Amino acid sequence: MSHRNVSEISWSGWGDPEHKTALSPELLSLVQGALQIKHPGKTAPALEALTLSPSALPDAGLESLRSAVGNEHVLLDDEARIRHLRGKSTPDLLKLRSGDTTDSPDAVVVPGSNDEVAAVLAVCAEQRVAVVPFGGGTSVVGGLTPERGAFAGVIALDLTRLDQLVSLDTVSRTATLEPGLRGPEAEALLAAQGYTLGHFPQSFEYATIGGFAAARSSGQASAGYGRFDERVVGLRIATPSGTVSLATAPKSAAGPDLRQLFLGSEGAFGVITAVTVEVSPTPAVKLYEGWRFPSFDEGQAALRTLIQDGPVPTVLRLSDEMESALNLARPDSIGGEGATGGCLSIVGYEGTAENVDARQAAASEVLRALGGVPEPEAGPAWEAGRYSAPYLRDALLDAGALVETLETTTFWSGIPALYEAVREALVEALGAQGTPPLVLCHVSHVYRSGASLYFTVACAQSDNPLAQWQKAKTAANDAILAAGGSITHHHGIGVDHKAWYEQQIGEVGIAALRAVKRELDPGGIMNPGVLL
Amino acid sequence: MSHRNVSEISWSGWGDPEHKTALSPELLSLVQGALQIKHPGKTAPALEALTLSPSALPDAGLESLRSAVGNEHVLLDDEARIRHLRGKSTPDLLKLRSGDTTDSPDAVVVPGSNDEVAAVLAVCAEQRVAVVPFGGGTSVVGGLTPERGAFAGVIALDLTRLDQLVSLDTVSRTATLEPGLRGPEAEALLAAQGYTLGHFPQSFEYATIGGFAAARSSGQASAGYGRFDERVVGLRIATPSGTVSLATAPKSAAGPDLRQLFLGSEGAFGVITAVTVEVSPTPAVKLYEGWRFPSFDEGQAALRTLIQDGPVPTVLRLSDEMESALNLARPDSIGGEGATGGCLSIVGYEGTAENVDARQAAASEVLRALGGVPEPEAGPAWEAGRYSAPYLRDALLDAGALVETLETTTFWSGIPALYEAVREALVEALGAQGTPPLVLCHVSHVYRSGASLYFTVACAQSDNPLAQWQKAKTAANDAILAAGGSITHHHGIGVDHKAWYEQQIGEVGIAALRAVKRELDPGGIMNPGVLL
Repeated sequence: MSHRNVSEISWSGWGDPEHKTALSPELLSLVQGALQIKHPGKTAPALEALTLSPSALPDAGLESLRSAVGNEHVLLDDEARIRHLRGKSTPDLLKLRSGDTTDSPDAVVVPGSNDEVAAVLAVCAEQRVAVVPFGGGTSVVGGLTPERGAFAGVIALDLTRLDQLVSLDTVSRTATLEPGLRGPEAEALLAAQGYTLGHFPQSFEYATIGGFAAARSSGQASAGYGRFDERVVGLRIATPSGTVSLATAPKSAAGPDLRQLFLGSEGAFGVITAVTVEVSPTPAVKLYEGWRFPSFDEGQAALRTLIQDGPVPTVLRLSDEMESALNLARPDSIGGEGATGGCLSIVGYEGTAENVDARQAAASEVLRALGGVPEPEAGPAWEAGRYSAPYLRDALLDAGALVETLETTTFWSGIPALYEAVREALVEALGAQGTPPLVLCHVSHVYRSGASLYFTVACAQSDNPLAQWQKAKTAANDAILAAGGSITHHHGIGVDHKAWYEQQIGEVGIAALRAVKRELDPGGIMNPGVLL
Repeated sequence: MSHRNVSEISWSGWGDPEHKTALSPELLSLVQGALQIKHPGKTAPALEALTLSPSALPDAGLESLRSAVGNEHVLLDDEARIRHLRGKSTPDLLKLRSGDTTDSPDAVVVPGSNDEVAAVLAVCAEQRVAVVPFGGGTSVVGGLTPERGAFAGVIALDLTRLDQLVSLDTVSRTATLEPGLRGPEAEALLAAQGYTLGHFPQSFEYATIGGFAAARSSGQASAGYGRFDERVVGLRIATPSGTVSLATAPKSAAGPDLRQLFLGSEGAFGVITAVTVEVSPTPAVKLYEGWRFPSFDEGQAALRTLIQDGPVPTVLRLSDEMESALNLARPDSIGGEGATGGCLSIVGYEGTAENVDARQAAASEVLRALGGVPEPEAGPAWEAGRYSAPYLRDALLDAGALVETLETTTFWSGIPALYEAVREALVEALGAQGTPPLVLCHVSHVYRSGASLYFTVACAQSDNPLAQWQKAKTAANDAILAAGGSITHHHGIGVDHKAWYEQQIGEVGIAALRAVKRELDPGGIMNPGVLL
């Protein structure tokens, strides 16, 4: 399945199986004690031991799909189907650990061009086959788990053969990329010419360009480079009703910004087959530091001052007291020494040496004036572990902990109440099930008028961890909406957030989106049940 | 009609009639000579001399409208109808000068709240009456000239009674404003509390908050503050199918960004009844300077370097050789001395004294290194005349000149070809009619990946200046699309750009927007023929 020199992601957990993280005996003991874990978690069976329903794809459809993309690019084997089953949320992993393969696609189809994507959509529309666009497979909100409903079958449309840097415009500083490029692949192609996307979400190692756009990803350096959707200046989308190309200018007054209708559309309208995105020169210097604040509120005020009045660092994050105490920003030493109270912020600068120096000097003055104390060594420690949390989750699930993350966003003035509301909902919902949780939080992204909160929850697994988490997640989602937050900041809607999304944007908003869906996807084959 | 202490805009031209600009004898003579003007232009008749068709509004509709907003807020008199007739493009003004009142609304309805707007839409949907949302009346693209078609009547929905600062959030730095506030009114309300929108388009004195949002306005300080649509974080829209409120967070991954579907929708889906927008502290210092570059290309490279690599000034504009020679950036001395060749750029800084000093010092170094020569006095001169060009147009039309502006945008790499294509199209189309034009241009707005070009065209009026301009405008629009530009950067689509807009976003894009329109406005009463 792998078309390039990148490791294939673990089918049952996160990341490169070679890099599986084990908990140190000390951390294991700490976790077991703190969470009052009674029993280890269920681990995944061998892939070979899983059983799948036979592919339901009609013969005529199968033949047409083979004609569209070539025999060798229509995969029916169990391994391919299992590797395209759901995403990487904790519920997704728990289901696999239980051997639940009910959502497997009937086939994996791997097109090699926009025209082949269009041909596959035509076949599927005719044959009433649902299509799940599949990039890195890293959704954590059920974005890859469509409703099979009355469809004749479901295919995963694996986009990883669409892996080209189509063009680089060094004057305009834009690159046109195909959707199947994974983060590191896109970075390598651009780095060879002296550029970077500056987009480094935690899923960076496996997530793809198309997924970044379709789910409105936001990276750890968003303060400096912007969110992925803010960097997108052009899109090409193949829909069942035809292909649309939107790449005329960065901004204009030519009606509604249609790019913003497809960004975040999660495959419900069509398949993104090219993305034109702003690029930046490869920074000569990357400097990450820690700053410790007496409290979460004081830290937030400092971050807000920087993003509103400048100078704006490239990376700007802030852990709450509990997360700081556990050193979650430094996965090398979680629970170890160095947690000296207060709240740890990570502040990073990328750019030319001169630019980094100037911004660091001016920002440090602001941070110091607002109560920050520098902790330089925390920066490199954060950098070293910036992609490691999902690996750690696998080990914690093995150990019997239930671990998951969720996130939200609102305006700055609403952040304190939103923070309390979500924390309380999680503590109450899990406590009521006899598994009081640890709830950790950090401000992960900042804007002039608002910020995002990223929560990590850990507790002992009950006998039915899926149901246990569902209750907690429901309580958290209700609390988010009640406190005026968005049901998601950068994970997306998928199937999991749909009920709350409908409340958030209201009947008229949903009606508008459904109208677009009916027009562009009259058969409703595109990721049915996801988003809408 | 005026609800506040602001002068009413001239019904037949631009601006405060008290501030009508006369051409100096020197300038008149220069213009007459340069453009080979043969005869003066037709001037407007007295308002009282115009004749209108009787209001076509059905009696039942009229009564229902009076119930919805109160008798005194349904205006049927000729003056009100004429004052809500079309916008402020040169063709609009030429039609008025000819006494053409064919597009007059049948009534002017002035609601006082979101609920009254909704009630008016309900009446109009039932009575099959078309609705033209009307803020400042400053559209230059036919945004106020709907297709009457088979409708029972047309009303102008005057929003100027919706004139409140609803709330100011000083922590999040956002303000919620009603749509009928004119630029200076909104600024005064915010200034009283120490804030500014930072939005100063040429139409600032009369255009409204709702119009800024509905037509994606961009101000002269957009380099620093951003475009208006980039500052909007929340909207409330009353549609015939219900009201939608979108104000949860600055950015999120909660599906498509629906705000971006209503920004730029030009009243075709509904009426914007509240806008939540980022505000900035009133700058302590405003500093505008001129910089002269040897050529348009060199000036563009300097602007591009600043916007891409920083530091980013607040105002950043660049006139081409011809515009610089005519000193159009300094309306106090058009055609006068001081035009010493090359291209004049206006570079401005707003902020704290410290911030302005630092940015000016660093930016000046860049500008100098890239061939710029400072011309400090050009800054204040530009500032003094920044809103005066539309006044000048009235005087030039009187003198027999045909004067109009148009604008476009694309990525930086495409700017030189776009510039040449539009210039050539205008020169050729007007030259073929025996009226060779002066074509002036400036880069009016810059982005990391692109820029806008703003053209001013002047020639002698032919016997039929409307038809004369239509040919030139058609040629320019064709040239814009052929060169890969957007049919508009900040003026919008209206009726005038619709044919080219359809080509620009393509069949699938148009189909998606029409689907939204059918859903939100099933009777098609909202600004029919505008945008879609």
